[in-house]
Amino acid sequence: MEGNTRSVFTRTVTPEQVLERADVLAAEEPLEIRISHGAGGQRRRLPVAVTMRTPGEDEDLATGFLFTEGIIRDAGQIMSVKWLEDNTILVELQPAVPVDEQRLTRHLFTSSSCGLCGKASLDAVQTVACHFPKTGHPRVDRQTLFGLPAVLRQAQKTFDATGGLHAAGLYDAGGNLLLLREDIGRHNAVDKVIGAALRNAWPLPFRDQLLLVSGRAGFELVQKAAMAGIPLLAAVGAPSSLSAELAAISGMTLVGFLRGERFNIYTHPERIAD
Amino acid sequence: MEGNTRSVFTRTVTPEQVLERADVLAAEEPLEIRISHGAGGQRRRLPVAVTMRTPGEDEDLATGFLFTEGIIRDAGQIMSVKWLEDNTILVELQPAVPVDEQRLTRHLFTSSSCGLCGKASLDAVQTVACHFPKTGHPRVDRQTLFGLPAVLRQAQKTFDATGGLHAAGLYDAGGNLLLLREDIGRHNAVDKVIGAALRNAWPLPFRDQLLLVSGRAGFELVQKAAMAGIPLLAAVGAPSSLSAELAAISGMTLVGFLRGERFNIYTHPERIAD
Repeated sequence: MEGNTRSVFTRTVTPEQVLERADVLAAEEPLEIRISHGAGGQRRRLPVAVTMRTPGEDEDLATGFLFTEGIIRDAGQIMSVKWLEDNTILVELQPAVPVDEQRLTRHLFTSSSCGLCGKASLDAVQTVACHFPKTGHPRVDRQTLFGLPAVLRQAQKTFDATGGLHAAGLYDAGGNLLLLREDIGRHNAVDKVIGAALRNAWPLPFRDQLLLVSGRAGFELVQKAAMAGIPLLAAVGAPSSLSAELAAISGMTLVGFLRGERFNIYTHPERIAD
Repeated sequence: MEGNTRSVFTRTVTPEQVLERADVLAAEEPLEIRISHGAGGQRRRLPVAVTMRTPGEDEDLATGFLFTEGIIRDAGQIMSVKWLEDNTILVELQPAVPVDEQRLTRHLFTSSSCGLCGKASLDAVQTVACHFPKTGHPRVDRQTLFGLPAVLRQAQKTFDATGGLHAAGLYDAGGNLLLLREDIGRHNAVDKVIGAALRNAWPLPFRDQLLLVSGRAGFELVQKAAMAGIPLLAAVGAPSSLSAELAAISGMTLVGFLRGERFNIYTHPERIAD
């Protein structure tokens, strides 16, 4: 283990030469997330997911994942998080937390990379993430948005070394970075940062915060942000069609292509101050 | 439906102005893949995955997915592919194709974005993708590699419009592009291009071809390439630690950061001619 990178030997090839050198890659390993739930003699253990992730801050990842998948409602529903073995983590839920094993199985039968899926999910998110106020709160200056990526990049410890890690950052409406997490999977980076916020006892919904992701904004990222009630999601890259649809329904401001002094607003522009 | 893009209305914000305009986003919709298998009265239908994908060439996607997940061994095991409804596709397998439903459920219980997972999978791939010759075949010139991304980009119809689609291309050892597929998910783009090759009756393993992906080379992409016996995987972006491990074990040449006249070789450099 060397944190979230691994040393390798590589050959850099150019027209003129082959340079043999040491290099670092973003670490990628499977994490199996299990839960235990129920009370007394009814207590059961259940594997809920295996995700390929960059090791580190796995308690945040597990907490965020269970939350954005709708399995827990807040971090208070977690009794403890412990390691069963390398790359297998057990989240012990409070005895009173209801777990619908059938829904879980049916749900996880689908790709974990899509979270809630398709039309059913657009409906589901509308129900679950009901705390979205369709107002202009918070108001964010365009200058604040212009500045977010540089702050993320500066705080990102590993990206420059490996070129392989996504980052997700939670900011206040003034553009101050509050929490940053990195992972080889963009969805994991978002789960980690949301999980970290929950473990830091941020009150839900995260109505005053902005989320910036270093890559593109696929449907699943919008869905995860919506679960936490985050009112503005900004991405350095492109959104997808379904992202924009879900953001529109959720009352979320979706910003894409945030690069240099430029960005696109796809939904709910009323939060961006002129 | 407008092919693999969707028209939206967007506001482009710069320090000086807000420009309201029409824009296009990469389409993203869930695809449910079901199979039917067994003979006569024992015939059963089974959902195997839901993946968020860009619509189009879904028969290729379903075929490639079933192949790279190890559910079918070649396209000849498919009797027919048909649509049950919008975004739900049924792949009817030949009656003689053995399907281990339990393995399928156990397997898909894990994230579909990781394919075969972790240590077990490194072992599994070694068994399944046993057709990897640990030799220097094919030999590829560095100049040929330098040229691959430009060919992919030129052939990529949608990327420039949306900035949101990944591409995967299969080339011959001389750098001629044979097949290209695009998708919002890099794993889907690879499944589509491998599925297209199978449906075009390319003989397995694809021992003479190179695969280029437009993004990073995560574990799952190496795993998918390994299932098809592809001897060289090149990525425009970074590989992960597990990618390099799996490529090393599989006898696959893994090239990363292929940009301009420069690339890194992580494993099996013997295929790259000086």
